[in-house]
Amino acid sequence: MKIKFYSTGGTIDKIYFDQKSTYQVGEARVEEILKEANVSFDYECDSILRKDSLDLTDADRQTLYETIRSDPHERIVITHGTDTMDKTAQKLQSIRNKVIVLTGAMQPAKFRSSDAEFNVGFAVAAVQSLPHGVYMAMNGQIFHPDKVRKNVEHNRFEAL
Amino acid sequence: MKIKFYSTGGTIDKIYFDQKSTYQVGEARVEEILKEANVSFDYECDSILRKDSLDLTDADRQTLYETIRSDPHERIVITHGTDTMDKTAQKLQSIRNKVIVLTGAMQPAKFRSSDAEFNVGFAVAAVQSLPHGVYMAMNGQIFHPDKVRKNVEHNRFEAL
Amino acid sequence: MKIKFYSTGGTIDKIYFDQKSTYQVGEARVEEILKEANVSFDYECDSILRKDSLDLTDADRQTLYETIRSDPHERIVITHGTDTMDKTAQKLQSIRNKVIVLTGAMQPAKFRSSDAEFNVGFAVAAVQSLPHGVYMAMNGQIFHPDKVRKNVEHNRFEAL
Amino acid sequence: MKIKFYSTGGTIDKIYFDQKSTYQVGEARVEEILKEANVSFDYECDSILRKDSLDLTDADRQTLYETIRSDPHERIVITHGTDTMDKTAQKLQSIRNKVIVLTGAMQPAKFRSSDAEFNVGFAVAAVQSLPHGVYMAMNGQIFHPDKVRKNVEHNRFEAL
Repeated sequence: MKIKFYSTGGTIDKIYFDQKSTYQVGEARVEEILKEANVSFDYECDSILRKDSLDLTDADRQTLYETIRSDPHERIVITHGTDTMDKTAQKLQSIRNKVIVLTGAMQPAKFRSSDAEFNVGFAVAAVQSLPHGVYMAMNGQIFHPDKVRKNVEHNRFEAL
Repeated sequence: MKIKFYSTGGTIDKIYFDQKSTYQVGEARVEEILKEANVSFDYECDSILRKDSLDLTDADRQTLYETIRSDPHERIVITHGTDTMDKTAQKLQSIRNKVIVLTGAMQPAKFRSSDAEFNVGFAVAAVQSLPHGVYMAMNGQIFHPDKVRKNVEHNRFEAL
Repeated sequence: MKIKFYSTGGTIDKIYFDQKSTYQVGEARVEEILKEANVSFDYECDSILRKDSLDLTDADRQTLYETIRSDPHERIVITHGTDTMDKTAQKLQSIRNKVIVLTGAMQPAKFRSSDAEFNVGFAVAAVQSLPHGVYMAMNGQIFHPDKVRKNVEHNRFEAL
Repeated sequence: MKIKFYSTGGTIDKIYFDQKSTYQVGEARVEEILKEANVSFDYECDSILRKDSLDLTDADRQTLYETIRSDPHERIVITHGTDTMDKTAQKLQSIRNKVIVLTGAMQPAKFRSSDAEFNVGFAVAAVQSLPHGVYMAMNGQIFHPDKVRKNVEHNRFEAL
């Protein structure tokens, strides 16, 4: 059972540029997380976007939609910023015959303490076991794209 | 859906005591990993053993078996040393009406780079979705207790 | 020989707020670094400012100057943002009878990989051994406030 | 001012081998620490021994002594296990015209939380500023090889 990973940016990939005294989206971290976990399933990683999810445009979502729809793999994990993860997930819902799981992180994977590794592990198990459909995997739960909101104050996702 | 976590020791909980220039099994790390991931499902953590899994005795496994069998929760994750994880899993296989997932780590959770967080995340998704039974969750895969071996050279589990 | 630590913010103390998808200056990290290193000399920590050093005003520098001048300790380490560390150091140069060492970090101390711990260790040794005066301790070197520049491209300080 | 680093093993270089469920001395970490700190002084690293310092023999110390004595650099930092650091330092005391600073760590550099980076930073500043002689740099203090003991209970060095 092969899994395809797409990264689109977001907090999980944020790095710190001292030159600008700011955070920016860096290279995708998901492959490093998979290596660190020494996973033994078959997989492939691609980076399609490198943006804070607040900056994703309708055109970006269209590109992502077309890429995923035409991808030959049945099981796909997408790392994505948390602010508009639900919007992207909704856009993908018309894709048939695939299990698509979106995940991300509230703290950059480069931090000593981050939810990135847990979330990727959780998403990998979810994409292997769930029926066809589009899901969001955050905070140790599976959410449906139409029935979730990000609780900014408590820094987590909640079912509606 | 509440999840009960039991820790039994193993590499995931290993710490380093400079006083003795040696490692020892420390306090259970699973609760800290769940907090770091800011999980929002209901859970409870107990520590039953604090041993290298090579040191687990038949009496230890009997204690663990009785504790799990009489535990009221349906979904249980056990963190365990990797060397005899399959032996403990086999011992638990006669327990009915529960989903039991054993996981652990090849590198201590205290390390900068460890598979512990990924594995716990993976186990949490697995325990939520799998049917009743006993499973081992390592290296991004689900293994059946009777059909797995630890490949010591490549430092990972493989299906038989 | 007691050492007094003042923190003023800067990259060393940066944290990431997912709520705003942005970094901010968080609580001072220097005390945690000293505890992690299990230092056995006598010390005291105070936080006077919590700002990116690009945002420090002349009034902020005046406050810092007066605080340091009236501080009873002979040996003082200041953690500071790197962009205007030289400007603050120049402002403090008229203070007599003290060893004052400014340090900071190019990567937040919260990162898995950061220069913060090395730099604080370096600054602590420097403040113990240098004669009275004001110094900057970065990239494993001691710089004089009038003879240093930050090489933004190479992300390090250089002597003029 | 060039600095020569020699690594001899010890806790600072300990890694965890799951294959043997044990810690072992791995490759020297000091060079990685210097890179992480982006130091700009000139340096060179060599590994002469890879042992727990309790396992160092008189012959090992003789080798180390001869290597250091014939090394052309004036300023030398040695990373060393903490249990017999004083014994090695005493052996080196007859070497003339050099500043030699021994340091190490109570927690492996591979840990998320370790004193290794602080100690190396401290040793680097010390070796740049101290007069000729042999010193131990631990817990934020400089110790003389004849006037120090490791307080095992409090996990730190103390002056006698």
